Amino acid sequence: MTAQLLTGIGELTTNDDELGRLHDAALVLDDGVIAWVGPAAAAPVADTRTDLGGRAVLPGWVDTHTHPVFAGERSAEFEARMAGARYAAGGIASTVAATRAATPAQLGANAARLRREAERQGTTFVEAKTGYGLDVASERASALAAAEVADVVTFLGAHLVPPGIDRRDYLDLVTGPMLAAVAPFAQYVDVFCEEGAFDVEESREVLLAGRRAGLGLRVHGNQLGHSGGVRLAVDLAAASVDHCNHLDAADIAALADSSTVATFLPACDLSTREPFGPARELLDAGGRIAIATNCNPGTSYTTSMAFCVATAVLQMHLTVEEAVFAATRGAARSVGRDDLGVVRVGAPADLQALEAPSVVHLAYRPGVPLTAAVWRAGALVAGGRFP
Amino acid sequence: MTAQLLTGIGELTTNDDELGRLHDAALVLDDGVIAWVGPAAAAPVADTRTDLGGRAVLPGWVDTHTHPVFAGERSAEFEARMAGARYAAGGIASTVAATRAATPAQLGANAARLRREAERQGTTFVEAKTGYGLDVASERASALAAAEVADVVTFLGAHLVPPGIDRRDYLDLVTGPMLAAVAPFAQYVDVFCEEGAFDVEESREVLLAGRRAGLGLRVHGNQLGHSGGVRLAVDLAAASVDHCNHLDAADIAALADSSTVATFLPACDLSTREPFGPARELLDAGGRIAIATNCNPGTSYTTSMAFCVATAVLQMHLTVEEAVFAATRGAARSVGRDDLGVVRVGAPADLQALEAPSVVHLAYRPGVPLTAAVWRAGALVAGGRFP
Ligand SMILES: [Zn+2]
Ligand SMILES: [Zn+2]
Repeated sequence: MTAQLLTGIGELTTNDDELGRLHDAALVLDDGVIAWVGPAAAAPVADTRTDLGGRAVLPGWVDTHTHPVFAGERSAEFEARMAGARYAAGGIASTVAATRAATPAQLGANAARLRREAERQGTTFVEAKTGYGLDVASERASALAAAEVADVVTFLGAHLVPPGIDRRDYLDLVTGPMLAAVAPFAQYVDVFCEEGAFDVEESREVLLAGRRAGLGLRVHGNQLGHSGGVRLAVDLAAASVDHCNHLDAADIAALADSSTVATFLPACDLSTREPFGPARELLDAGGRIAIATNCNPGTSYTTSMAFCVATAVLQMHLTVEEAVFAATRGAARSVGRDDLGVVRVGAPADLQALEAPSVVHLAYRPGVPLTAAVWRAGALVAGGRFP
Repeated sequence: MTAQLLTGIGELTTNDDELGRLHDAALVLDDGVIAWVGPAAAAPVADTRTDLGGRAVLPGWVDTHTHPVFAGERSAEFEARMAGARYAAGGIASTVAATRAATPAQLGANAARLRREAERQGTTFVEAKTGYGLDVASERASALAAAEVADVVTFLGAHLVPPGIDRRDYLDLVTGPMLAAVAPFAQYVDVFCEEGAFDVEESREVLLAGRRAGLGLRVHGNQLGHSGGVRLAVDLAAASVDHCNHLDAADIAALADSSTVATFLPACDLSTREPFGPARELLDAGGRIAIATNCNPGTSYTTSMAFCVATAVLQMHLTVEEAVFAATRGAARSVGRDDLGVVRVGAPADLQALEAPSVVHLAYRPGVPLTAAVWRAGALVAGGRFP
């Protein structure tokens, strides 16, 4: 592999405490990792040299909450919800039916399309959940499809109790044969801990079974109300608890005192008209946060991390720096990767350049597609045509 | 010119009462206009044939509120505002200073960059305002730059009273020599009728002077409070009154009973944290609305009409159809163009195709760049690489 020099970096967001934010910087990428970082004027010679003309560079987006393995879409349900109908109508069950009916090739192609779409917008790391199969064969097929397109796979058999099966029987299935079939392809187990899905005790059972199978823990919690999912996640030292729209002072204190990352999903909040979660308050209390897309066909059908970051700044009152951190290094911590979402020597060369002089433009210029180039493990995977 | 057949249109939004929304449609573009529209199965033969593979087609965006003639940017002010500082700090005055110091070539290049950026996102018609020159020479230069990149030019000498000149003297300048210098290059006059800018009587004076010089009327009104701008616009039968964040029941009734278009600017509202205007209520009352970007470096630095449309659906409770209409044909009416923003035989072939089967995806998939192709007067100006 040849060493590439990227120079003329107007602003380099490193997410590294010592390096901070650099101006007029350069990077050398070699063998898939960052081999050198520093002032452009001091850059070493490399095999190739690309001048970024003052563009901003930052780590690629780390999207740690997606549901890309599904068939069909639900734009009609979305339209109805926008016109005032409440979260339901059609709903997850229709996606489960379509997903079960799809071939593995169809599931794989759809997931790959979404991964590629995300990549063109700067996403270099993706977590993907199962959860639209909800029988042993379909969950296993979903996990296989997820493993092909994602960097980390999460088993979400406990998305809901599907029609036609007794609740207790389904819990036995999820924590027994389904878990056994999926665990070899997954790194995490997840549960939708919410009224209408699984209560706290059921959720605990699912998570503990996953842990026994060697999986890390994630929780969908406190999206529609005070489900108890957040406290359960903290109790079990889960890697992440996601949604977090409804947090009381005790939830915030518990999260701030834990290693559990609270993952906020601003696009989902807009698409379901749920109030934004108190990310600002949690940060102020010392908590760890992430921002993710929750890409799924029902409640958040976007792959745009930039849209989520802009929304977090404009409407959730994060600073641009906080939102970018949450969408890169903050998210990486929720999948146990302290080497991702950071620019420093030895870290994977997963990077993006913007058609802008600063990351501030991600919120200052909302909606404008600003991705100028994307590198994954040092290879240019999108954009890169600089004048 | 050769006749082009566009076929395989999964969904065609015509904005035409009789045609409605068509499925499996085709279009023939010839000599810059739409020469034929109907079912794909009945399409005539043409010189070229492009299969859109089921993609949705709709009129190009009509962006009737932009301020693209300026120099510099204000991302630092934006960051400060997001961190809690109020609308001001740096402010318009800093853009005025930078604009006066810029050469005509610099102003033209910056405006052209924004026009091109908008075009790549589906915008086929742009109104552009002066208003960062605020002396005779700079306003004239701004109007010339605007005329080069925009379809309609609006004289906004009455943006604010610049530093260093008496208020009365400035009003005399705006309604006298400055108007005389700019009017030959403009079609509309505009005034910022708001506390801190111009009051209702001053605004009336500016508008009436513009009308005497042969210009149509536009008003910035009711953005920060009940400025009276909306009532003034209705009294004078202005073409448009823009912002409209604060409307009381009498304002809504007056607008609904008038031909004045209320132009909402959702991206500006987000970027200034002003509450969204009551577009839903005004539509329900029978009013005419438009949606525009308000592209400017201070309060709304976006060119993305798709972002504005998505925001109008997700947060202002318009239906997708209403929002798309407001961003195309509704806006066109505010510049006196009943032939734009509509698909019918004889209308200009200003069109966009989406990387999606329906316009619903503009709000269902927020932030995802969905522009697949853009045609202006029948010529492909962006995208168009279909598999
Ligand atoms: Zn989810
Ligand atoms: Zn304006």
